[in-house]
Amino acid sequence: MIRAGIVGGTGYTGVELMRILALHPEVEVTIVTSRSDAGLRVDSLYPSLRGSVNVVFSLPETEILAECDVVFFATPNGTAMLMAEQLLAHGIKVIDLSADFRLKDAQEWSKWYGMEHACPEIIAEAVYGLPEVNREAIKTANLIACPGCYPTAVQLGFFPLIENKLINLDYLIADVKSGVSGAGRKAELAILMSETGESFKAYAASGHRHLPEITQGLTIAAGKPAGLTFIPHLIPMIRGIHATLYGQLQLNAELDDIHALYEQRYMDEVFVEVLPQGSHPDTRNVRGSNNCHISVHQPQGGQTVVILSVIDNLVKGAAGQAIQNMNLMFGLKENSGLKTLALYP
Amino acid sequence: MIRAGIVGGTGYTGVELMRILALHPEVEVTIVTSRSDAGLRVDSLYPSLRGSVNVVFSLPETEILAECDVVFFATPNGTAMLMAEQLLAHGIKVIDLSADFRLKDAQEWSKWYGMEHACPEIIAEAVYGLPEVNREAIKTANLIACPGCYPTAVQLGFFPLIENKLINLDYLIADVKSGVSGAGRKAELAILMSETGESFKAYAASGHRHLPEITQGLTIAAGKPAGLTFIPHLIPMIRGIHATLYGQLQLNAELDDIHALYEQRYMDEVFVEVLPQGSHPDTRNVRGSNNCHISVHQPQGGQTVVILSVIDNLVKGAAGQAIQNMNLMFGLKENSGLKTLALYP
Amino acid sequence: MIRAGIVGGTGYTGVELMRILALHPEVEVTIVTSRSDAGLRVDSLYPSLRGSVNVVFSLPETEILAECDVVFFATPNGTAMLMAEQLLAHGIKVIDLSADFRLKDAQEWSKWYGMEHACPEIIAEAVYGLPEVNREAIKTANLIACPGCYPTAVQLGFFPLIENKLINLDYLIADVKSGVSGAGRKAELAILMSETGESFKAYAASGHRHLPEITQGLTIAAGKPAGLTFIPHLIPMIRGIHATLYGQLQLNAELDDIHALYEQRYMDEVFVEVLPQGSHPDTRNVRGSNNCHISVHQPQGGQTVVILSVIDNLVKGAAGQAIQNMNLMFGLKENSGLKTLALYP
Amino acid sequence: MIRAGIVGGTGYTGVELMRILALHPEVEVTIVTSRSDAGLRVDSLYPSLRGSVNVVFSLPETEILAECDVVFFATPNGTAMLMAEQLLAHGIKVIDLSADFRLKDAQEWSKWYGMEHACPEIIAEAVYGLPEVNREAIKTANLIACPGCYPTAVQLGFFPLIENKLINLDYLIADVKSGVSGAGRKAELAILMSETGESFKAYAASGHRHLPEITQGLTIAAGKPAGLTFIPHLIPMIRGIHATLYGQLQLNAELDDIHALYEQRYMDEVFVEVLPQGSHPDTRNVRGSNNCHISVHQPQGGQTVVILSVIDNLVKGAAGQAIQNMNLMFGLKENSGLKTLALYP
Repeated sequence: MIRAGIVGGTGYTGVELMRILALHPEVEVTIVTSRSDAGLRVDSLYPSLRGSVNVVFSLPETEILAECDVVFFATPNGTAMLMAEQLLAHGIKVIDLSADFRLKDAQEWSKWYGMEHACPEIIAEAVYGLPEVNREAIKTANLIACPGCYPTAVQLGFFPLIENKLINLDYLIADVKSGVSGAGRKAELAILMSETGESFKAYAASGHRHLPEITQGLTIAAGKPAGLTFIPHLIPMIRGIHATLYGQLQLNAELDDIHALYEQRYMDEVFVEVLPQGSHPDTRNVRGSNNCHISVHQPQGGQTVVILSVIDNLVKGAAGQAIQNMNLMFGLKENSGLKTLALYP
Repeated sequence: MIRAGIVGGTGYTGVELMRILALHPEVEVTIVTSRSDAGLRVDSLYPSLRGSVNVVFSLPETEILAECDVVFFATPNGTAMLMAEQLLAHGIKVIDLSADFRLKDAQEWSKWYGMEHACPEIIAEAVYGLPEVNREAIKTANLIACPGCYPTAVQLGFFPLIENKLINLDYLIADVKSGVSGAGRKAELAILMSETGESFKAYAASGHRHLPEITQGLTIAAGKPAGLTFIPHLIPMIRGIHATLYGQLQLNAELDDIHALYEQRYMDEVFVEVLPQGSHPDTRNVRGSNNCHISVHQPQGGQTVVILSVIDNLVKGAAGQAIQNMNLMFGLKENSGLKTLALYP
Repeated sequence: MIRAGIVGGTGYTGVELMRILALHPEVEVTIVTSRSDAGLRVDSLYPSLRGSVNVVFSLPETEILAECDVVFFATPNGTAMLMAEQLLAHGIKVIDLSADFRLKDAQEWSKWYGMEHACPEIIAEAVYGLPEVNREAIKTANLIACPGCYPTAVQLGFFPLIENKLINLDYLIADVKSGVSGAGRKAELAILMSETGESFKAYAASGHRHLPEITQGLTIAAGKPAGLTFIPHLIPMIRGIHATLYGQLQLNAELDDIHALYEQRYMDEVFVEVLPQGSHPDTRNVRGSNNCHISVHQPQGGQTVVILSVIDNLVKGAAGQAIQNMNLMFGLKENSGLKTLALYP
Repeated sequence: MIRAGIVGGTGYTGVELMRILALHPEVEVTIVTSRSDAGLRVDSLYPSLRGSVNVVFSLPETEILAECDVVFFATPNGTAMLMAEQLLAHGIKVIDLSADFRLKDAQEWSKWYGMEHACPEIIAEAVYGLPEVNREAIKTANLIACPGCYPTAVQLGFFPLIENKLINLDYLIADVKSGVSGAGRKAELAILMSETGESFKAYAASGHRHLPEITQGLTIAAGKPAGLTFIPHLIPMIRGIHATLYGQLQLNAELDDIHALYEQRYMDEVFVEVLPQGSHPDTRNVRGSNNCHISVHQPQGGQTVVILSVIDNLVKGAAGQAIQNMNLMFGLKENSGLKTLALYP
């Protein structure tokens, strides 16, 4: 059994890692850390885990974590970069669900995240953990930077168009909507039920931290700079991301052909489903699962192609994708422990 | 007191007309029709009206309606066009909340609505009831075609950009999200709580009936054809529309100037509020009110300008706007009976 | 015009007072205080008030408030008791929406609220502001203790049974459910959308602060001690309270007679509606209004009588009732400014 | 592999059976019937099953079902009773999730369900599928009547009190709240998002079909007639049942002892968790799982004991419990395929 540690077990991605790993046939979660709740049983804070998770929160100390084969960081930004080097030195594989190693440019990172990067020298070593583009690199990586939730939905949606040079890179638009759990488990007025329930709004229209991450990924895929307008919105629900992506065709293309490209691109991907033409993916159909559902539209047969891409932000957008990476790193089946179907209705 | 009749009193726009008119100082609702519930007290079906609405549903017959000064149609598409001419002949003003008189081209109408138009000869007589562009014509109109909910939010959002020729008319994008009440009060699986709650989806991506209506309005405003991609989505909540609009600047313009244009355009409009720069309107802040809140963004100071526009689909998007039209037609203060503030939280 | 001040304008009851008073024909809100937001425009924090409320937050100082005719306290518990005496000395009428003056027994108060009472000597002077039992006393009061939200729904539901000595006072049960706004506008994990959405739970089963308040009211109505089991629950929605009340009949009584008693008891009450037999009140039918809807049931014609009573916790359970009290204190029509109908759907 | 058939695969319990059985290590779903959708791929109707369920809807014909080892009925009431006898005659085990075989008294059944019972002669053969009381009988049964959702939550909550004769059987009260999915997947106005969202109501206060079923179960447990008042309510959410149960102690008992009784009663039950004293179970903590969480309260140390019991209505209240029964009938581990943890948040 692979011994896994989770640093930061009191947030939503931490508890989601536990939910999934509790049933993973080849992994045992041996350590879950929490500075504030050390000494407390995990299932006393999260009764949903009763009967399945038999762990007590411990302090996030390297010596304790050293017995693990792999450590997941489900921490706020700025924590993983302080501990990763030490763990790697112990030969432990590190999978970071925060943003610390997502951007290749440390200065860009500092600008968006408002702090100095603590270990810029190992950024190059980190592999961006989106298996659908980086599978081979992930298999041999020791340090994984798991993609953000928005970047996962947007990149999976845009890749086939961009890799095939079908659209104008200067006018990419991503109008993306997220459930409230994406904001994490923090005591903040803005994410109260009374503030977010029965209401819908955009936020961070002037610039969201996931913008440079998406742009970096699309630029790599395109081989030249991609110009993206990215507007995130908050949906009055808990889980799910829905990306509505707009591109301007620069080649003549018909919907049948575009759709076929998508089917071909994702044919062997176990977690990406290209829906039949005319479909509109619902976030509920991926809720709780590691799947991404995509559909392709060309309204009025015009020049604008519209891609709809949905994921569960806490699964394919966080914990599930992290475990998918772990499976690849340890030579397991890519969907081991990740076969759970979406909870409908 | 103006005597008002409501044809189709059992849907959401019908009951919303009653909610607002019950407190209108110069209007009395004397007749509410319902084929299925004739004879029943209105407040037995809608207990929210108890103590304020003292009317019994009657059959939708012209003789009964002839005693009214104004008749609102809160009916499914295809009903108003069968009765409007008769009522107009009796000298009754007609305000249609359905789509029957919205499109100037009867053939286009037939194509989108799937039936022949019953009285194409009076379409020209109908005034499109968006006071923010048609105020003077509304004042003297006898037949009003109230705008759809999506078209109201989208047009109010785009007007200043288009009237000032700031953006490329070929690449307009409207990514619009609506609460479920926009689908009406119909026994359909797709709008069950279990189907729409805790989920988000796009629909009608290949073409929604409001597309030709919006295009017609934007084309008139621009003085030349406008090309729009319009993708509607369903939000897991009841009331509210949020339009996220994207335009490509064709002139150099800075956010300060664009914002100033919006403030100037809507300075005298009692129901349109242009929010300060940096704001993101919430649908909750207009819920239950006749207001439209708009904010203007220019991400990264680039070429794409983003407009956020929110309304309550049942008020400014339907019943409230209908009453705003009535106020204008009868020489009342434009906001008479429409001062109610949004229900927050 | 009556000049009204609101101390504590940044919570939900504060903003609700402003929403309602903005349209009150005989009141002008001249002062709204907030220690944290002094100097800020009220409508910059609450855009729902734009165009209707033209006030800047000021500091909560007696000299500033002295120009008011009436001051509402929409503050956390423990604030009104520090300022009330001074304001009363200035001849200002005080309406406290917090719990400071609800319990007649200062020691009992201290036990439940965890602090010493700052002015026990004026508790006796305070009138419990439930007009349906205390109307005459309210008219001449200078200090009103507005009832809690749960106590309003529960007492209005139980009064006719208790006043008529129909049920055994030893076995009263109140199973009550509240929307999340009842918990206020506080940055707390427990009331996040991600924590309370799509879930239902009881809380404070061992004893909630509203228990002694309800017991005090029922005991006064009965003329002897009432024994109540009160279990509050949290509903995944924003506004509304639903009380399900159980009493054991100690006299033979039939549903027709019990129902008639309720109709008679509330016949002249403008805000209490007794629904027809067989009805089940929905919280949505009172949302945003000052109404209480009640229905009476006797399952299987047995000994247990079941009362269903619903209100909007922020209106009849807080701000609306406070204004109802103000209307009585100033000799206005009891429903002045309070005619708004519920927002359905 | 056990070959399973599902009759009525288009409702929520049908799709839930498929969601769970898709990952069951010892079962293969070979047949799913639907009269209306025969010929259609199951995952085209339910995209949440894409990639995991590879079945086409077939007609509900006995010959087709005859190849199964077990057939689940996820049909409206009145269907299983028409087909069960034939299937049993083929040696197929039948698990009915509808109400057809729940009541032992066929006349009582007819009264509540409004139709004649089609095969009263086999009612006696049916075993009531609540493993926590009927485990041994279930193991050898050929026909299982799966309990209703409300009856599961209420009975599991009351059993320890009743089996130990602690409470007065004349005054049992069950105030129970359910998510909307309990009403099924039917095109009905009453369960629209716009009708049930952001609102709370009781229904069927005069008598719900689950009343005789619960009474039957409690009477068996008590060994004498139990008198229950049962009031169901609708929660504005999709999944989950919360039962708040009230009993009058007829023996002196302290909370410690009562709590210990509960822990002892359910010590060996893999799906029933008795929470620590002071806890309040959330429905979210069992959502998507087959668990029942229970807590015990004695407000103010008085005579009224309050039990809180939560389940997911579609899992422990329907599909999960059906599979738990199947596991027992086929000698599998009771929790085989049922280890999924609740989806939190």
